[in-house]
Amino acid sequence: MKLTILGCYAATPRTITNPTSQVLEIKNRMFLIDCGEGTQVQLRKNKIKFSKINHIFISHLHGDHFFGLVGLISTFMLLNRESDLHVYGPKGVKEIILLQLRAGNSFTGYNLYFHELESKESEVLFEDEKVIVKTIPLKHRIYTNGFLFQEKNKERKLNIDKIQHLGIDVVYYQKIKYGGDITLDNGTIIPNHEITFDPEHEKSYAFCSDTVYDENLISLIENVDVLYHEATFLEKESHLAEKTMHTTAKQAATIALRANVKKLVLGHYSTRYESIELFKTEAETIFTNVLLAEDGKEFEF
Amino acid sequence: MKLTILGCYAATPRTITNPTSQVLEIKNRMFLIDCGEGTQVQLRKNKIKFSKINHIFISHLHGDHFFGLVGLISTFMLLNRESDLHVYGPKGVKEIILLQLRAGNSFTGYNLYFHELESKESEVLFEDEKVIVKTIPLKHRIYTNGFLFQEKNKERKLNIDKIQHLGIDVVYYQKIKYGGDITLDNGTIIPNHEITFDPEHEKSYAFCSDTVYDENLISLIENVDVLYHEATFLEKESHLAEKTMHTTAKQAATIALRANVKKLVLGHYSTRYESIELFKTEAETIFTNVLLAEDGKEFEF
Repeated sequence: MKLTILGCYAATPRTITNPTSQVLEIKNRMFLIDCGEGTQVQLRKNKIKFSKINHIFISHLHGDHFFGLVGLISTFMLLNRESDLHVYGPKGVKEIILLQLRAGNSFTGYNLYFHELESKESEVLFEDEKVIVKTIPLKHRIYTNGFLFQEKNKERKLNIDKIQHLGIDVVYYQKIKYGGDITLDNGTIIPNHEITFDPEHEKSYAFCSDTVYDENLISLIENVDVLYHEATFLEKESHLAEKTMHTTAKQAATIALRANVKKLVLGHYSTRYESIELFKTEAETIFTNVLLAEDGKEFEF
Repeated sequence: MKLTILGCYAATPRTITNPTSQVLEIKNRMFLIDCGEGTQVQLRKNKIKFSKINHIFISHLHGDHFFGLVGLISTFMLLNRESDLHVYGPKGVKEIILLQLRAGNSFTGYNLYFHELESKESEVLFEDEKVIVKTIPLKHRIYTNGFLFQEKNKERKLNIDKIQHLGIDVVYYQKIKYGGDITLDNGTIIPNHEITFDPEHEKSYAFCSDTVYDENLISLIENVDVLYHEATFLEKESHLAEKTMHTTAKQAATIALRANVKKLVLGHYSTRYESIELFKTEAETIFTNVLLAEDGKEFEF
């Protein structure tokens, strides 16, 4: 699982900081999460192939999370993209994008599917044999969702030494991976657990931005491997966090602790602070495994 | 008159090239012309104060000319701008911007005025005591205008030596500047032309992008000091210029020559070419005074 931060600052793009966007690579699928202005340039800087992006998730319709979307969709068109593109985002995103494409008399040569969201309950947005993606309803000034990405490792791992020792033919391997028992030629039944190991750990990643401190989150993100949680402010600006419906570093760490996540990645920093290290220091008073998002940074999990 | 190029490349923003946007400073007024994605960051890089921008002119609704507008308007809001902002652009621009602001439940604390354009004839968009701005109707794939900026130097220049020699009081200077004759105490009438010089040359700047080669332009931009004319292609791609309704460097130079302009600035380059010097070389076969726009470059005229 690889996370590339394209932008992790709040509010407006600046010369050296970018608004929210990130790419999650999980089980060889690539998901773009949020798309602030300048995302397409950040993708280029990070050498991420445009053609590998087929699914874009938009948390909410504040500019710093989606003003780069129409430009990216247009650039895909100019580059003669042919494969389908799926956009998951709040109701309204489709009209905004199509209005602009129509005004430019510009229509995509590829299929552009909008999956508009309105539910306040968690729902499944995407699922295939390897990955499932669900919404995490967040509380912000406007309708907002985080996203939970989970690996699906249903296949059991073969204990090749034992299988070969028993002389089991390769044609049965698929059956064994899916939990089947094997009957040998002599009639002996070999239970599956004797010739397999448990499936690999199913990694998970939760993206939670933007949101006020919200304990309802905890049950939805419990035990995830990596939690990206916004930390727009430090605790001394907690009044601003409350007013603007954002979170402090300490609050983010509290959510991480209570949800028993393995790692916490902080981001969505206000640019008012001298150093983002301050966020880490504050969060570490509550939770030990804190990482800082930075524009252009890659994390391997 | 100062022209700052924020972006001068066609199509999509890239790591080192930006889509169209430029700032014209004329008679201490600052006009933003077009606003491709990333314009606000380019403004910051060029240290142009956001507060000095009160008038934004949008040529047409292709993304590389206006996808940065909504972000800039939002940033003005986040920076607590109070002064009025005027946006001049094709009909449709207002709905596009307001739809996005509404979706984010974001409303500007300043007055935002849209002046939507539909006319195919040149019209006056802005006029005060020092500057007049008119549209230059262009022919492109969608409704498009260039913009003509002209200084208004109505005041005659005082011939101070003569005026003082004649003992004319300072209270009459304003009258003299506006062409008035003076009657001395002894009854002698001094005709204005004897105590003034002609007004300073009224500088002018014409912005023409995007457009097909169009001789109808010539009469609208005749004798301007500086013509910015798009040159998306070189002559060997003239078939593409025709197909996409753009211009070649040679065609831009032909317009400059026939309109008898003083200087030609080329821009809106396709990124397919190795060097933008090729545009200059081609244009110079037709017209001598050719300059190349480059992102971040400032011209003083």
